[in-house]
Amino acid sequence: MSDSALPLVISAPEPRTLDLIFTPEALARFRARYRIVETSPEGVAALTHDVLAEARYIVGQPPIAPETLERMTALRCVFNVESNLINNMPYETLFSRGIHVVTTGMVFAEPVAELGLAMALNLARDIVDADLAFRQGKELWGGEGNRAARLLSGADVGIIGFGDLGRALNRLLSGFRTRTKVFDPWLPPSILIENGVEPASLDTVLSSSDFVFVVASVTSENQGFLGTKAFARMRKGAAFILLSRAGVVDFPALMDAVRSGHIVAASDVFPQEPLAQDHPVRTLPGFLRSAHRAGALDIAFKRMGDMVLEDMDLIDRGLPPMRSKRAERETVSRMRSKPVDKN
Amino acid sequence: MSDSALPLVISAPEPRTLDLIFTPEALARFRARYRIVETSPEGVAALTHDVLAEARYIVGQPPIAPETLERMTALRCVFNVESNLINNMPYETLFSRGIHVVTTGMVFAEPVAELGLAMALNLARDIVDADLAFRQGKELWGGEGNRAARLLSGADVGIIGFGDLGRALNRLLSGFRTRTKVFDPWLPPSILIENGVEPASLDTVLSSSDFVFVVASVTSENQGFLGTKAFARMRKGAAFILLSRAGVVDFPALMDAVRSGHIVAASDVFPQEPLAQDHPVRTLPGFLRSAHRAGALDIAFKRMGDMVLEDMDLIDRGLPPMRSKRAERETVSRMRSKPVDKN
Amino acid sequence: MSDSALPLVISAPEPRTLDLIFTPEALARFRARYRIVETSPEGVAALTHDVLAEARYIVGQPPIAPETLERMTALRCVFNVESNLINNMPYETLFSRGIHVVTTGMVFAEPVAELGLAMALNLARDIVDADLAFRQGKELWGGEGNRAARLLSGADVGIIGFGDLGRALNRLLSGFRTRTKVFDPWLPPSILIENGVEPASLDTVLSSSDFVFVVASVTSENQGFLGTKAFARMRKGAAFILLSRAGVVDFPALMDAVRSGHIVAASDVFPQEPLAQDHPVRTLPGFLRSAHRAGALDIAFKRMGDMVLEDMDLIDRGLPPMRSKRAERETVSRMRSKPVDKN
Amino acid sequence: MSDSALPLVISAPEPRTLDLIFTPEALARFRARYRIVETSPEGVAALTHDVLAEARYIVGQPPIAPETLERMTALRCVFNVESNLINNMPYETLFSRGIHVVTTGMVFAEPVAELGLAMALNLARDIVDADLAFRQGKELWGGEGNRAARLLSGADVGIIGFGDLGRALNRLLSGFRTRTKVFDPWLPPSILIENGVEPASLDTVLSSSDFVFVVASVTSENQGFLGTKAFARMRKGAAFILLSRAGVVDFPALMDAVRSGHIVAASDVFPQEPLAQDHPVRTLPGFLRSAHRAGALDIAFKRMGDMVLEDMDLIDRGLPPMRSKRAERETVSRMRSKPVDKN
Repeated sequence: MSDSALPLVISAPEPRTLDLIFTPEALARFRARYRIVETSPEGVAALTHDVLAEARYIVGQPPIAPETLERMTALRCVFNVESNLINNMPYETLFSRGIHVVTTGMVFAEPVAELGLAMALNLARDIVDADLAFRQGKELWGGEGNRAARLLSGADVGIIGFGDLGRALNRLLSGFRTRTKVFDPWLPPSILIENGVEPASLDTVLSSSDFVFVVASVTSENQGFLGTKAFARMRKGAAFILLSRAGVVDFPALMDAVRSGHIVAASDVFPQEPLAQDHPVRTLPGFLRSAHRAGALDIAFKRMGDMVLEDMDLIDRGLPPMRSKRAERETVSRMRSKPVDKN
Repeated sequence: MSDSALPLVISAPEPRTLDLIFTPEALARFRARYRIVETSPEGVAALTHDVLAEARYIVGQPPIAPETLERMTALRCVFNVESNLINNMPYETLFSRGIHVVTTGMVFAEPVAELGLAMALNLARDIVDADLAFRQGKELWGGEGNRAARLLSGADVGIIGFGDLGRALNRLLSGFRTRTKVFDPWLPPSILIENGVEPASLDTVLSSSDFVFVVASVTSENQGFLGTKAFARMRKGAAFILLSRAGVVDFPALMDAVRSGHIVAASDVFPQEPLAQDHPVRTLPGFLRSAHRAGALDIAFKRMGDMVLEDMDLIDRGLPPMRSKRAERETVSRMRSKPVDKN
Repeated sequence: MSDSALPLVISAPEPRTLDLIFTPEALARFRARYRIVETSPEGVAALTHDVLAEARYIVGQPPIAPETLERMTALRCVFNVESNLINNMPYETLFSRGIHVVTTGMVFAEPVAELGLAMALNLARDIVDADLAFRQGKELWGGEGNRAARLLSGADVGIIGFGDLGRALNRLLSGFRTRTKVFDPWLPPSILIENGVEPASLDTVLSSSDFVFVVASVTSENQGFLGTKAFARMRKGAAFILLSRAGVVDFPALMDAVRSGHIVAASDVFPQEPLAQDHPVRTLPGFLRSAHRAGALDIAFKRMGDMVLEDMDLIDRGLPPMRSKRAERETVSRMRSKPVDKN
Repeated sequence: MSDSALPLVISAPEPRTLDLIFTPEALARFRARYRIVETSPEGVAALTHDVLAEARYIVGQPPIAPETLERMTALRCVFNVESNLINNMPYETLFSRGIHVVTTGMVFAEPVAELGLAMALNLARDIVDADLAFRQGKELWGGEGNRAARLLSGADVGIIGFGDLGRALNRLLSGFRTRTKVFDPWLPPSILIENGVEPASLDTVLSSSDFVFVVASVTSENQGFLGTKAFARMRKGAAFILLSRAGVVDFPALMDAVRSGHIVAASDVFPQEPLAQDHPVRTLPGFLRSAHRAGALDIAFKRMGDMVLEDMDLIDRGLPPMRSKRAERETVSRMRSKPVDKN
């Protein structure tokens, strides 16, 4: 096949790079199968009419003006490898024309779920402070060091949000025989039941769990929905693990609930990132901190490229994409996460 | 039923206490169903002939002289709630007479497995030092903090020893889709295969795993069997998690392997406990420490009492005990763990 | 809420009925939440402009002319409870306007999978003819009656097609520790791997399986794709279980393969239904027959109503449907199953 | 190693044969590792003093007189490959001397469980009579043929007895999401809970199950314990599947319960085997028959040899057998199954 017969891809994956999201082998396959026009997000509008007219795919989330989109008559799918949906392209027109917009953020589900489980076990067994005490010669041996220790096995677990991350977490919990309740108003109860968890109200999840995992995205409606009242509803001594976005939580209220000794908490996300050097959460006892490291593993980024290739292969054969997650008309405008500015 | 018709139990559970191993409800049931003669381990020999002759059960691991045992004509089972088998009673005579000797140590399997999994995830994600850095305002954000991070999901896992603890660990791993190899010369390969793991030689487990969990008991034959050569066989950067007994490891060699950067490690057990204040493991980077806290949770001790009651009920009905673990003629003399002196 | 404020539903579920697809309780809820205009499929075009303009949902698969659709300005979703997609409405316009077309056929996955598993076990153990022999006093006892018997546990299993039905079957197989290979060109390999099965070519599935389950839909491209060559590739004595549509198989070739003794087979579907009285498959030894009974259980039909209610609730709240299966632009025109004429 | 240095095995496996229980490869390994003295069960007593003195193992269940046993000073284990424990050797002396008596009957658990599951599905979907009707041109199509059809998925299941067979059955059910209750008075409730089933009384199991599987062995205490009252307690239309021994059931009462239409039933075992030609169960509608074929698969017999080799290997290394099932002092005298007279 002459190169010019290959399908054309506009590549503008910033802030990712092709080297970040593809293994060398996958990148070689990508380059062998497609004509790739690499540009910056801002450069898309300036591409030639020929390039725009021939482009079958976009990799990235560049701003697309309606008139640019009009010229892209062969476009079939936008692969948003950043994963937050910015309001910088005419989604309605894309949907109306049957052009898929897909995100690859599900690659983060497994690494985030692993860190979330690790955080829960750390809170349950006080691993960080026990190691610090050991370094300082102040460790307590055996049962004496376990006054507040408890098991995750058999515990009451609550999960808020049951997208890819909630499901990954639920899978990791499968060996722990937990009783798991889930609050997710975007899903019908029967899907939760099929996944072996119990659908529950937010209040029930908060008030009847030993461990509460928050994996819900921020939307235009749920900003700060977990505040003072929510934490007060939690069981004394329960653990609160925040994995998705700081925006869903009233952070000062969370800190108060931990400071008072009512709950313990762990978080991978913070109201400002990086966080001010003098932010009080830095030294708050009963709080385990992680600097937005839950998902950003190299292996996760590399899986993005695999997803892109698998879905391009399906679309090339006239089939719909099945691997990435499709943006939905109904919810695209509700998603309000800030875009990432670092990988 | 008049009290004197109840079966008689000699209770000498030191270093445990009845309050440690029974919940209040279970203890009430225990006292309602049995006549309980409480004594110290040393006091057993001094009990009256009547008490010895009527005793159906012993709870504890008191020294029993052959002539004392001869008087215990109704004895059916010794419930060793300490769990290490000390050579202080005539096991051969007990076995020959069909008196069961059972241990309740399996209650520790679940809590130890949870801590072991937590340790593995901590090593994989460097959670302790990341939290310390955060406290000090030196944290690295996102991918920058994940240079050495990796997943347990999909990893090659090795387990050395597949008793109750190895099985509990394997169960916790069930959601991680690991490829798990097990070395346990005391088990036929087919039992390992039935448990979904791959039987392997010690060398294969060491050399082809990203995470190696050591859960084997110390025996007269395997003291210090994991030394310099074993650690050298491990993959560069692999994690070694020691959960059973320090005696199976050449501890200085383990520290050398960590110090050199070849592997990272975590341990719940140490050559001396408590450990000298100036022991170099206290500050060794790449080593996660826990002061023999893995199993000693109150909930685990309480399950011992439940096990004792369930097995007494079976034996009372003429059935063999099924809940506790029976000591075996072949292996009782091989077990060489030091008895615990604290709970 | 006054009745006229309730969302309007046009109900034309023929050949189903509301009583078939709703339990009495679900139907009561349906009637309480919606204004329901019941009509025949042909009656839709004759509905008043007001009804058309207000209709939010259609239950059924009535013919819809473009000009009728134009009047349905509030339409949000067509609930096709028949499940085969007939080319009787302007799908492109529906998709372009963002109106969902969903099917509820996944309710059949579980009952069909159960019958499929039962058929496989029947073929493996020759249950029908053994019972017949027993009735006639000709049974063979013990091992003598098991000359050709084999296990499903641990067997090589092949599945052709991995939609809802393939997944339901795979779930039922989870206790059997089979090695399962799947051929499904519409899915990326990684999704198969995540489901614990091995992606494979059609030839590999056929030639390396002890049991082959066919659960693929008929499309415009795969009619009769399993013929003489396919059966010849199968292992001697293997079992072929046809569960989806007779159209994917060259039926005479299948019968030949069974007649020759090369394979055994079972089928729930036939080239004509009902089948001619003198059709040779009726008495073909080595062939297990079921008269399209696999899915048509009352409990399955009743679940359709539950699905409809759950998805209406989501759409009413501005969310996309999650429970039913959405028709896809890319594949709607490829589906070529004959509509059912009986439930 | 000279042949005379090999451990000596007395082989008297009747009614099995070495060719039945060993694959050719396993038999070659057996012969290479051991000196095998083959004899009939009755011939054991007549073996030379040297052979008796040197024998480490017996394969089979020959009668052993106390004086013969006294000469067998090196005996370590009797491998009873018939699996029912006949009272033809001094078990107390064996146990007292620490000689293991093990059975290999667990090889039948998997094939019997598969047939049991198949029977349940056959009763739920009426597969046999539907195929017969199809042969005769009288089949009912679709829902019309499913008037009494139901699902196993999600059903209430009861299991009576939870030995190897009950556990194998429970494993096969794992994909069916059943609510499973178990009655087994020989096991502590916590072991049932650990296996994911609910401990229950016999009455609860009978009265609250859609499918009741009987997998309990006959003992001196439970002969015919399932009679008229038991069947009357069952749910109308429930299915009763008998897999272990006919002796636990009052067979005429079972037939009455089926004849009256109260329940449906399947059985692999019968009061007399072979059964009289005019026995009324042969033509009883609602009853599915299997001529004691559930376990007797060649692959099951061959696994016996593998078990024997694995356990001999452990015992040769000074370890206890772990693969086969040990006879217990407490229960050996309670087992009352008739020995098999055919394989």
